[in-house]
Order: sequence, then C-alpha cells, then structure tokens
Amino acid sequence: MEDNTVRFGLLGCIRYASKFVRTVTQSSNAVIIAISDPSLETANTFAAANNLSPETVNVYGSYDELLNDPRVDAVYLTMPVTQRGKWAVTAAEKKKHLLVEKPPAQNSAEIDTIVEACESNGVQFMDGAIWLHHQRTVKIKETMFDSGLLGDVRHMYSTMTTPIPEQVLERLTKEAMGLAGAIGELGWYPIGAALWAMSYRMPTSVRALPSSIATNSVGTILSCSASLQFGPTADATETATAIVHCSFLSQLSTDLAISGSKGSIQMNDYVIPYKEDTAWFKYTSGAKFVDMHIGWNMMPEKVMVDCVGTEESQEAMMLKEFVRLVQGFKQGESEADRRWPEISRKTQLVVDAVKKSVDIGCEVVYL
Amino acid sequence: MEDNTVRFGLLGCIRYASKFVRTVTQSSNAVIIAISDPSLETANTFAAANNLSPETVNVYGSYDELLNDPRVDAVYLTMPVTQRGKWAVTAAEKKKHLLVEKPPAQNSAEIDTIVEACESNGVQFMDGAIWLHHQRTVKIKETMFDSGLLGDVRHMYSTMTTPIPEQVLERLTKEAMGLAGAIGELGWYPIGAALWAMSYRMPTSVRALPSSIATNSVGTILSCSASLQFGPTADATETATAIVHCSFLSQLSTDLAISGSKGSIQMNDYVIPYKEDTAWFKYTSGAKFVDMHIGWNMMPEKVMVDCVGTEESQEAMMLKEFVRLVQGFKQGESEADRRWPEISRKTQLVVDAVKKSVDIGCEVVYL
Repeated sequence: MEDNTVRFGLLGCIRYASKFVRTVTQSSNAVIIAISDPSLETANTFAAANNLSPETVNVYGSYDELLNDPRVDAVYLTMPVTQRGKWAVTAAEKKKHLLVEKPPAQNSAEIDTIVEACESNGVQFMDGAIWLHHQRTVKIKETMFDSGLLGDVRHMYSTMTTPIPEQVLERLTKEAMGLAGAIGELGWYPIGAALWAMSYRMPTSVRALPSSIATNSVGTILSCSASLQFGPTADATETATAIVHCSFLSQLSTDLAISGSKGSIQMNDYVIPYKEDTAWFKYTSGAKFVDMHIGWNMMPEKVMVDCVGTEESQEAMMLKEFVRLVQGFKQGESEADRRWPEISRKTQLVVDAVKKSVDIGCEVVYL
Repeated sequence: MEDNTVRFGLLGCIRYASKFVRTVTQSSNAVIIAISDPSLETANTFAAANNLSPETVNVYGSYDELLNDPRVDAVYLTMPVTQRGKWAVTAAEKKKHLLVEKPPAQNSAEIDTIVEACESNGVQFMDGAIWLHHQRTVKIKETMFDSGLLGDVRHMYSTMTTPIPEQVLERLTKEAMGLAGAIGELGWYPIGAALWAMSYRMPTSVRALPSSIATNSVGTILSCSASLQFGPTADATETATAIVHCSFLSQLSTDLAISGSKGSIQMNDYVIPYKEDTAWFKYTSGAKFVDMHIGWNMMPEKVMVDCVGTEESQEAMMLKEFVRLVQGFKQGESEADRRWPEISRKTQLVVDAVKKSVDIGCEVVYL
C-alpha cells in the first residue's frame, strides 16, 4: 500500500455504512483500514458483520483515535448530523480528506467552517449525495440539457419521502436530526435536484407551503413542501419554479419531473434506482396532441442506462470521483476541486432558507 | 327519432368540436341534428369537413336560431369562454341540456348563474373535462383510493402545459381567453385533478407562486403555478398540499403524481391518454428501499386499462354519462344530477382563488 491506493477510515458505524464498505471492498484503488465509533461494541459488531478482519482493519472506540492514525488518508462521516460539523473540522485539521453523509452540517455557516478547514488544510470535501454520480444523471445532462432537447427549464417537481414507523417519529429529536429535520435529512435530495437542473443557479426566493408542514411533539420537522423561485437576474432572464417535497409521513417516493420549453423529463427513482444494475429516464421533446386531440404525436422515450456490475453502481461512481481527487493530492496536487463543496454549500443555503420560511410562518425568504 | 335518442346541437363550430361530432356519430343513442356559428360560412365549412349532411343536420348562422329549434334536446357549447356564460343561460331558458367546454365560465358567480338557470329550467349541466370519465380515472379511484392502497393523500402534483407559437401568444386577449387566462383554460385540469384526488374536499387556501407567472403584453396570464393547501377542518384532520402548474410556454406535459401515506400513483397523460385504445397508470404501495439502500423492494406496478374501440374512449364515456342523464329527463326525471355542476363550481372557485392570488401579488387567498 505504498502505491496510490486511498486508505479510508469510518467515523461512525451505522448500519447504512455497510454500503460504503461494500463499494470500497469492490474497488481496486481504495481500502478500508480503520473504523471507529464512540461505542467500541458497535464498532466491533460492525466489523464482524461486514467481514472487516482485525488483521487489516483497526477498530477504534473513539473518532479521535482513528483521526490520529497517520495511515488514514480519507474519512467517511456518518455520525448524526449534529456532530458532523465538529468532526469534519477536526478531521480536516488532521489532514484527512472528507466524504460526509448528507446533510453534511446543520446550516450553511457550519458548512463554510468545514470548507474553510478543508481549504486551509489542503484536503478535499464532498458530501454523500450519491445520485449526482450516477451515469444516468450524467447522461440526462448531456442528452437533454446540453443538446437542447429540453429547452429552458420552466417547472420542476421533486420529492424524497420515506415513511418512518409512528412510534419512532416521536424519537426524532433535534439532537438526532438537526435543526432542519426532514428538510435537511430528506429535502437535501429534491433541493439538490432543482439546483442541479438549474445548473446551480441559485433561487431568488423560497417559500415553505403551510399545509405541508408537520412536526412531532418535540418540534422536529417531519414533512415540508416548498417552492423555489428562480426569478430573473442580471445574468439570467428566464424564470423557473421548483417544487420540493420531503416527508417521513408518506410512502417512499423519489420523483423528479422537469418541464421545459421544448421537452420534459420524468424519473420516479432518481435518488436510488429501483435496481442497481440498470436505470432509465423518460422524456418527450416536441410532444403535442394529434389532430382532434385524441392522443399524442409520440410516446415518451425510455432511455436505458446500464451499469455493468456493482463497479458501476452510483456508489462506485461516487467513490471513483472522490478517489480520483484524493489521488491527485497524493500525487502532489495542492488545491481541492471546489465544485463539490460549492454544490453542498448552495444546497445548504436553500435548505436554510426553507427552514427559515417555516420558522416565520411560511413567509417568503429572499436569497 | 321519437325514441330515446338524444338530439344534439352545436353552439360554435371550432375545429376541436370535430371530436365531439365523431363521438356522437359513433354513438347509438345520440345524434347531431343541428350546428350553428355566428359565421354561417364557418358552420358550412364545418358541416362539410365533418360529413354532416344538410339532409339530416340543420346549419344555422346564429346561436339563437339553433336554440329556437324545438327538436334540439341538448347543446354542446364551444364558443370563446367569455361568451359561454351568456349562451349557457339562454340555452337553459330554452330548455336545452348543457354540455359546456371547460372552463364553462369566467368566474364562479357566472357558473352559479348558469347552474341556477339549469335548475329552474329543469335541464342537466356538465362541463367538458373529459378525463374524469375515462375508465382509467374510475379504476384508480377504486383500486387505489377506495381500497386503501394509497392511504391518505399527502402531496399532489399536476400539470397541463401546451405550447403556443410565439407569434400567437400576443393574440391571446382577455376577450378570447377570459380573465383567468391559462388558469382557466389549462389550469382547469390540474385544479380539477387535485379536487378529484381529495374527493372534492375544498382547499383551505391557495397561493400563486411568483416566478411561475408570465403574461403577454395585454395582460393575459400565460403561465402560472400555485399551491393548494388542504388544511385541517372540522370534518378532516389530515392535511395535504397540491401543486398545480399550467402554461402555454412549456412543451406538452400532463403529469399527475399523488403521494400518499401508503402508496403513490403516477401518470403522465392523465388529460388525454397517449393512445385512444389503451391507457395505464403506475403505482407502488408499501415501497421501501431494500437493505443497504441499493434498490427498492418493488418496481412500480403498471395497470393497463383497455378501451375497446372508440366506443370506450373517454369522449364516448362522457357522452354516455351525459346522454344517460338527459334520457332520464326525457323519461320524466325532474331533477338534475347535482354532482356534475358541483364539480364545475368547486373547480371554478379554486381557479378564481388562484387568479385572485396572482392579482394581489401572490399573497395567500383563503377559501
């Protein structure tokens, strides 16, 4: 391992981190060399469950110990969102590159602090919004946006809803979920999708939509819809609206619909595709009703995107991109790719604005 | 024709009315016996284009003449929306049953006037929102709503966008399009869809969404999104939000997505199905991510609804329902079915509220 292999450590051993371990294990240029959790028992159980041998993987009962392990190049943070900011900064100071589960922080000020720590310590930052790395996402950008088939974006609709059992809802405290609750935890996806579709142009204003908002008895936001207005600016005259919806009170839905001046795109599994080895999106371009309005002049086109094996899963593609950037540093690169932290920062700014709108009775919040 | 056949007259000979003629022609218990247009030339051209023989169909150069034809049982109104209210009332006074293209009026006061005229003259009223009559629509209600597969509706998204050439946009005057512009002309569908999904429970408030609004130089609304809030009421504690979007500036899109506590439904052609002889909707119920979040525990179910021949097209189903009601009167029924005028009235009330929200700078409007 004197070569270019990126050596990962886990900060947090939640069950979901198994997916990351699986992806790294299948990768040829990354390896897990350490895991950590405030509970050593949790860490040991995780190691056993994920076939991480004590001969090759150090198991720590604290994040500090792992961060003091000089062999670790990069860390994957999965602890509760309320602790991510603090540990991300500490990790950056220990010169570890950062892959941080979404939402990476509780608000944009905290993200700024993390990104500054990364900049001054010369490490890369990326959040864990996996879908941005899926080959389907890349393909849509090329075939629909860059080609002009979609035209100008007019209206977007995006959801991330996933149900939580009723008895668990009350246990979702702000300590576990962060101040923005579902807006950060789930809304990260639809808000990120709207920004992605707008090529990261920021909305001019946002507004939470009253009847969509639900909280539990301790005030954690469980459900919220919001509209994002992309008004005219000095740089962009075209206007657009995005509707984002996130909820722990609805069945699983991950819809993304984009309506443009020339075409439209639909997906119902943009966050995590139905199946790992294949994904698709549907679109029409130049659609109209036929004469007498008894049908359409076309059916939606279904574009398949095959992901051959788990090496091309969206997790693998994210890892590949992150490893590429870390390898750049290992080979002497001195500056981080600012695109990824900028995407996180913009997403968080919108999350914050939606949260603020909720706080002030669904009034408009300008950005 | 001394039998139970319903004898139709057309008030207005726009091109789109050909669809209605085709449907009536294929029906065994309805017939077109007269057509009219303020321009006799337009009426004659329409008659020739639609194979309406002068031997069986009277062609009139004014609506009054047709309404004075005692053989006419029922009329189909397609003149510009700004004239529908006046002619609907006149037709009701002449004891003609009314099938009125949507939107049937310019505002809810006008609908009330029409419905009162129908009530006091003992004639049936129905607007031309065809999709409500499609067998798919009926099937969704049974299989998703009544069965409990969907659960409580939480969030809805519905669009009706259809592009109009740029040079024509400026010619869309308020005289042609009515005061509500695209909100009445196109928004009738997504607003109607939201009400349908909520079993005609009215929203507690609505709000237009600023960046979505576009007008032409004469002030006609060309594009608008709005959120409908279904807040808690004395009768219903569950809250829901609907997003409706209508536009002449986007490519054709007719999406309807409903996200519920237990399931979700998706259609992309709810207004007019892609094909006349078959239609489908997709749903999931009880969907969740599989372990490690690398996929879903199910794929969306595609439910096909076959419409055998044009006799089961949505136009045919609408005609069937309307004819059934008119035949009831011919057989001595003295009261109209109040369900259809009530659907129109509620839809118009929401159209009016959205229009008002646009007028007052996208502030909330309570209903």
